[in-house]
Amino acid sequence: MNIGKLADREIKKALESLDGWSMAEGRSAIHKSYKFKDFNEAWSFMSRVALLAEKMEHHPEWSNVYNRVDITLTTHDADGVSERDIKMATEMNRF
Amino acid sequence: MNIGKLADREIKKALESLDGWSMAEGRSAIHKSYKFKDFNEAWSFMSRVALLAEKMEHHPEWSNVYNRVDITLTTHDADGVSERDIKMATEMNRF
Amino acid sequence: MNIGKLADREIKKALESLDGWSMAEGRSAIHKSYKFKDFNEAWSFMSRVALLAEKMEHHPEWSNVYNRVDITLTTHDADGVSERDIKMATEMNRF
Amino acid sequence: MNIGKLADREIKKALESLDGWSMAEGRSAIHKSYKFKDFNEAWSFMSRVALLAEKMEHHPEWSNVYNRVDITLTTHDADGVSERDIKMATEMNRF
Repeated sequence: MNIGKLADREIKKALESLDGWSMAEGRSAIHKSYKFKDFNEAWSFMSRVALLAEKMEHHPEWSNVYNRVDITLTTHDADGVSERDIKMATEMNRF
Repeated sequence: MNIGKLADREIKKALESLDGWSMAEGRSAIHKSYKFKDFNEAWSFMSRVALLAEKMEHHPEWSNVYNRVDITLTTHDADGVSERDIKMATEMNRF
Repeated sequence: MNIGKLADREIKKALESLDGWSMAEGRSAIHKSYKFKDFNEAWSFMSRVALLAEKMEHHPEWSNVYNRVDITLTTHDADGVSERDIKMATEMNRF
Repeated sequence: MNIGKLADREIKKALESLDGWSMAEGRSAIHKSYKFKDFNEAWSFMSRVALLAEKMEHHPEWSNVYNRVDITLTTHDADGVSERDIKMATEMNRF
């Protein structure tokens, strides 16, 4: 998979079909805040993301408080958002 | 919660509203075989069950092969099926 | 367990035996940054914390990036650090 | 990685350096029974195995009861034990 940095207009185009995802402020990254019923449901989602991350060898910056999970994706080697982040966000939205 | 052993007719009555659950063969226990899309989805379910088990301080006998999760519930202290197993099965079916 | 807010000197006293934990800046909370070998090991730790959180019905504010896990504990109902946070931090340090 | 079926003497040789692993009875597979302090510790181990399985795209047959985890490894495509199983067992023993 191409891990070169995407141009801003490419990212914006990709975000159009990524419900809830937007550009992170002040850096080349994408972000989404997920909200669940409770911690159990949030953790279930996080467990899926953890497996996906290991499979893709691509890891999110993320935080959790009870039923909320905030995820930021960027590709360090690309110094910005790459196809890999778009793919990961797409998979997460299918969970 | 009452952890006394339930009579067979009580268990059968409870199972009527527990989709997919049935009496285990040859012992006082209830059983269900869950099938998921893939390992990721199966693991997500297992993660929810793990949290539930710790919260209830009641642990399943379970096995997994790829997208399948087999669960058997019984209450050792009751030497059979108790309300606790019924409650746990009910919660699992809501996941 | 007492969930009343601890006085600052009580928190400081408790932190003396909590390796790596310190007062969070600008709020009544305690904080630790854990570092692991890789994501697998970090996730293993997070899985233990998740079970503990559900068992204690007390949930951390936490974030993860690859092998690093940052945890902040506070008790909302106490509007500050309570015995519950100290207990949770103690358990985590045993993992 | 070669996923061809290993000969019995190759498996036996590999098992010499795999503490606790042995040939499964009645089939070409290897097996180990792990015992932990409690469910929390067992689940922590299982979480590591889950990540490893997804990364290797190779999944165990496993079961858990409280602090015990039983794992059987075989390679369906090889109709027996392959290098992949040996590698997975080796990784698990490092957890």
